[in-house]
Amino acid sequence: MLIDSTYPKSFASDNHAGVHPDILAAMAAANDGDAPAYGGDRWTAAFEEGIKEVFGPNAEGFAVLNGAGANMVGLALMLGRYDAILCADSAHIATHEAGAAERLLGVKLMTIPTAQGKLQPDDIKARLGGIGNHHESQPAVVSISQCTELGTTYSAEEIAVLAETAHEAGLRLHVDGARLANAAAFLGCDLKAITTDVGVDVFSFGCTKNGALAAEAVVVLDSELAQAVPFLRRQSLQLASKMRFISAQLSALLTDDLWRQNADQANRMATRLANGLEGIAGVSLAYPVQSNAVFAALPPTVAATLLQRYLFHYWDEATGVVRWMTAFDTTPEHVDDFLDDIRKAAM
Amino acid sequence: MLIDSTYPKSFASDNHAGVHPDILAAMAAANDGDAPAYGGDRWTAAFEEGIKEVFGPNAEGFAVLNGAGANMVGLALMLGRYDAILCADSAHIATHEAGAAERLLGVKLMTIPTAQGKLQPDDIKARLGGIGNHHESQPAVVSISQCTELGTTYSAEEIAVLAETAHEAGLRLHVDGARLANAAAFLGCDLKAITTDVGVDVFSFGCTKNGALAAEAVVVLDSELAQAVPFLRRQSLQLASKMRFISAQLSALLTDDLWRQNADQANRMATRLANGLEGIAGVSLAYPVQSNAVFAALPPTVAATLLQRYLFHYWDEATGVVRWMTAFDTTPEHVDDFLDDIRKAAM
Amino acid sequence: MLIDSTYPKSFASDNHAGVHPDILAAMAAANDGDAPAYGGDRWTAAFEEGIKEVFGPNAEGFAVLNGAGANMVGLALMLGRYDAILCADSAHIATHEAGAAERLLGVKLMTIPTAQGKLQPDDIKARLGGIGNHHESQPAVVSISQCTELGTTYSAEEIAVLAETAHEAGLRLHVDGARLANAAAFLGCDLKAITTDVGVDVFSFGCTKNGALAAEAVVVLDSELAQAVPFLRRQSLQLASKMRFISAQLSALLTDDLWRQNADQANRMATRLANGLEGIAGVSLAYPVQSNAVFAALPPTVAATLLQRYLFHYWDEATGVVRWMTAFDTTPEHVDDFLDDIRKAAM
Amino acid sequence: MLIDSTYPKSFASDNHAGVHPDILAAMAAANDGDAPAYGGDRWTAAFEEGIKEVFGPNAEGFAVLNGAGANMVGLALMLGRYDAILCADSAHIATHEAGAAERLLGVKLMTIPTAQGKLQPDDIKARLGGIGNHHESQPAVVSISQCTELGTTYSAEEIAVLAETAHEAGLRLHVDGARLANAAAFLGCDLKAITTDVGVDVFSFGCTKNGALAAEAVVVLDSELAQAVPFLRRQSLQLASKMRFISAQLSALLTDDLWRQNADQANRMATRLANGLEGIAGVSLAYPVQSNAVFAALPPTVAATLLQRYLFHYWDEATGVVRWMTAFDTTPEHVDDFLDDIRKAAM
Repeated sequence: MLIDSTYPKSFASDNHAGVHPDILAAMAAANDGDAPAYGGDRWTAAFEEGIKEVFGPNAEGFAVLNGAGANMVGLALMLGRYDAILCADSAHIATHEAGAAERLLGVKLMTIPTAQGKLQPDDIKARLGGIGNHHESQPAVVSISQCTELGTTYSAEEIAVLAETAHEAGLRLHVDGARLANAAAFLGCDLKAITTDVGVDVFSFGCTKNGALAAEAVVVLDSELAQAVPFLRRQSLQLASKMRFISAQLSALLTDDLWRQNADQANRMATRLANGLEGIAGVSLAYPVQSNAVFAALPPTVAATLLQRYLFHYWDEATGVVRWMTAFDTTPEHVDDFLDDIRKAAM
Repeated sequence: MLIDSTYPKSFASDNHAGVHPDILAAMAAANDGDAPAYGGDRWTAAFEEGIKEVFGPNAEGFAVLNGAGANMVGLALMLGRYDAILCADSAHIATHEAGAAERLLGVKLMTIPTAQGKLQPDDIKARLGGIGNHHESQPAVVSISQCTELGTTYSAEEIAVLAETAHEAGLRLHVDGARLANAAAFLGCDLKAITTDVGVDVFSFGCTKNGALAAEAVVVLDSELAQAVPFLRRQSLQLASKMRFISAQLSALLTDDLWRQNADQANRMATRLANGLEGIAGVSLAYPVQSNAVFAALPPTVAATLLQRYLFHYWDEATGVVRWMTAFDTTPEHVDDFLDDIRKAAM
Repeated sequence: MLIDSTYPKSFASDNHAGVHPDILAAMAAANDGDAPAYGGDRWTAAFEEGIKEVFGPNAEGFAVLNGAGANMVGLALMLGRYDAILCADSAHIATHEAGAAERLLGVKLMTIPTAQGKLQPDDIKARLGGIGNHHESQPAVVSISQCTELGTTYSAEEIAVLAETAHEAGLRLHVDGARLANAAAFLGCDLKAITTDVGVDVFSFGCTKNGALAAEAVVVLDSELAQAVPFLRRQSLQLASKMRFISAQLSALLTDDLWRQNADQANRMATRLANGLEGIAGVSLAYPVQSNAVFAALPPTVAATLLQRYLFHYWDEATGVVRWMTAFDTTPEHVDDFLDDIRKAAM
Repeated sequence: MLIDSTYPKSFASDNHAGVHPDILAAMAAANDGDAPAYGGDRWTAAFEEGIKEVFGPNAEGFAVLNGAGANMVGLALMLGRYDAILCADSAHIATHEAGAAERLLGVKLMTIPTAQGKLQPDDIKARLGGIGNHHESQPAVVSISQCTELGTTYSAEEIAVLAETAHEAGLRLHVDGARLANAAAFLGCDLKAITTDVGVDVFSFGCTKNGALAAEAVVVLDSELAQAVPFLRRQSLQLASKMRFISAQLSALLTDDLWRQNADQANRMATRLANGLEGIAGVSLAYPVQSNAVFAALPPTVAATLLQRYLFHYWDEATGVVRWMTAFDTTPEHVDDFLDDIRKAAM
């Protein structure tokens, strides 16, 4: 991997972006004398209050250190020793968390092929046959990604139906919301409308990809489940000792809807990029653009040319599909320069 | 727990201190455009190089997010499914990591009573009887804390003998170095003298308590073991996506021996506090002061009075022993004010 | 489930059969005074010697209590904390061991769709792309079932190619040999020809379904791996205290090729059943009959009629496929009676 | 270990004894045609009914394969991911199950020193301080051994007080009843009086050491907890496919109080042995004899002489304490011969 900073704007990952200046400033402001450790500080209290304001009075927020951590702590709340998670086969927990679900939770992932990364209610219903059979792992949680790994977004209605389907079968609904802000920005709704209001039980609220340094939240909408979080967070290596600096990041994103401003910018730049691809010979979109991700099929020579200057990843080398991510700090100039280079490479 | 910032300097924990300004500045400086995620950046390369400079060319450093994480990743390298760790019964991994060793590693902790938190070679030898017996967990790692949980410090010679004892029996030596800097500062040696040079296999190098925001290192002195770290770190939820901000903290502490400057200050303030206790009626030291911790036995009424103004913890309520910690930002005035209050309370 | 013994011969499972009289007699003969526990007895020594005679001098056999236990102990030998198993999506370890692989081993199962339950070399090659990527579980073992869950059998050549493919990629080959005897009987070869001779690293040798009471063996062909078995077997709850009675069962099956006699009988009865189905309207074989399993597609009304008298299971209710198993004690009369009833039901 | 049958009666372990003839006969009788697998058979139904007769209508019994399996399945019912078990430091689960509790359950064992293997109510109370502290494993279960590993026996009253103490603190009481029959025989009470009637929540009912071949029961006195057993038993590798042969053993022991007859015989022989030691120079009892175990301190030369002819184990080589176990088939002649040899060796 490159360790040289002379390349242009990266389209490889929203994790390649830095930290939004307001968030860095909030961290510096929290460096104000002593404070109790492990969450007993006023910045954490403010964050917890902020979560209730955004997600409703029953929402309890817990700051953690990264996205896989948020998923593992949140899922652990709802899973016993012989349980299974139903999720898309593209789910981050299934593909890119290094087997954490299997090792740390000890559960089976029942992975489901999908058209565009989105589970359907029938996908759930079709996998309930083993319930009660002691030879089989017992489905206990449906986990969806919002946005999905393919950049698509569930509507509020779609989530509501999944929640209802899960709950009717005695399962819980978990959302890996690593890009929850991008989903709300795309849908033009608030964060509560796609979580609390539609029956989600536990979700991750991702902030690092949206301008934070290293901060995510586990949000729990069931107060009984929430009681276990402090213990599971500590044991899962997700508790910061100087917690105030994590909480300050989260609060900064919740302040004046910075989360939306950042996500909107990233989404708009992805749309600008997607729109700009129209008419470029040999280049086509692989999935609808509904967030800050653009999946495009390119001729191999085009990809090879671009990879000489830009950082990005093949999603599927067999089909020539690459993934381009935008971030809160991607500008129209970044996109237009990139489009110029794509056009040149495609000529 | 208090969430009010109006109390005086906390003596409860070095985690109550904020972040050293040089470290915050280094983090801000790392916010410089895009950078590859997950460690493929130039700040991480610099940190890795810094580790080799400090601990020798065979040392491989891996940045992680917190102390329990550093311990779990480091220990996992050396432990199979039926193995056991020998450690003091006061070890942090045994008492205050919420059972992470048992759940995440799945191994037994064979805990050993100690006089002042320090394991002796005979403690190891006495617990090797079950080796080869398939009914018993197999000792594979000796883990010591430097400094210990009781504020005492192993000399380089003591560690060398423990390493030799462990190695002769086919075990590895791990050091939970959450306060490794305080130990080196106390001993007046460099960090390498109590790790690489005396046979340690894997250790945690703690930075958060010594002025960082949230950053620790796992250092591995065996290149074969080191190969597993990236996978275990990712799976153990200890990999930061925007890694450059973690690495920058660690490098800042390694630059111009800031680690020693911070640890020296903390240690000196602990000594000043301990010295100031002499002659205060009813107050006595419980353990020798060899780092930034002062364990003192107090009459309950004295403790109660002090707890109205100060944050600190009882270590053992039955014996009236409290723990007072100093930090990199503790000043002589903080200590002297506290001593004044102790004297008044003890009158 | 029925608990009444008045039904005819069960075609539901080879586990519905009782114990072969020679095996019960061997158990009774082992009830001869005192014997050391946990495997230090002469019956166990004889079994271990028997394994070497059958599988070669490098084969080390370990008696365990059931098939899932044999799989978990054998697989644990070859899997680290972040590893994955490649297996067919129909594999018993993936579908019917209640998530033991995920909970007890903590590893990911990368399940692969197959035509007839059999993995192909390209299935392995296609799943090696994530090796070295710290975000992904690392493939370490290929596990195949012999016979497969669909009653098909790998030839010696097919296994040899799978072993070569696995080894070239640095993976090990494991065989869940719950019906290894049926495979050897079908192929007309000895047991060594489809294990030791073709590169298998570790396998389960199933005996319970083939006439034993409760006894299976883990056989390890690498003496370094074998050293861990006693510890993993004990920890995995698979060590019998009065081991002689387990070992005696295994030795009885190895004596005078009782394993082959039993498997041959079961296989012949499955073939007789399959042959008898020819010409029955609406009834067709779903998979080739290569062991003691017959998978047949039936009209639902036929299945329903038969299920009033006989115990057997639907394999796939959607396609009307049922599974019929024969056992060492199935007789031509059992089969012919059953065929009569099938014909009547199908009229 | 010896694999030669020419030694006299073993005093090493009640696992060295064979199988009681009535139990072998019951197994042979169960070999009666086909039967549903995995517990759907009439022998298992009879066993389940037998458990209710002996332990009361709320008791649900589940047959498993060995003692460690019974403990792990029973304990798993009551333990979440961050919980701890309080037990004596001599507990079998802590010392001789190869770390199964840590690996399979993922929990911490808080081990407690005891005088004679028996926990006291104050031992529980003294370890509740960390409840609610997210840095510490949370005590959830008290586990006692009946009889203890030192051969001592809790009275019904002692268990009642422990249960009350545990329940008041929100913990459950588990009994590792590997030798529950010996305890009831020693106390002269029925099995219910020291389990159901005194507040035990879940217990193991050991049968293998008391004349069975390989069969133990997990008994659950709370119907909600019991629902999880089938899944945990299957996943924990403790479900026999041909279950009828396990259930038949358990039922045979419950029939006509064979369990008591066997335990009484073993206990009487231990008492005979202990009584016979009186007056032998240099030989003294280390613990009161309250079951089928005799712990005696011997001069090393005496032990060495005896070990040339007899199988038994040192319990503590430092203090010269050996453990002698009797079994259901130990006879007065066995004991008297042994005593003769002890006397000769001690001369």
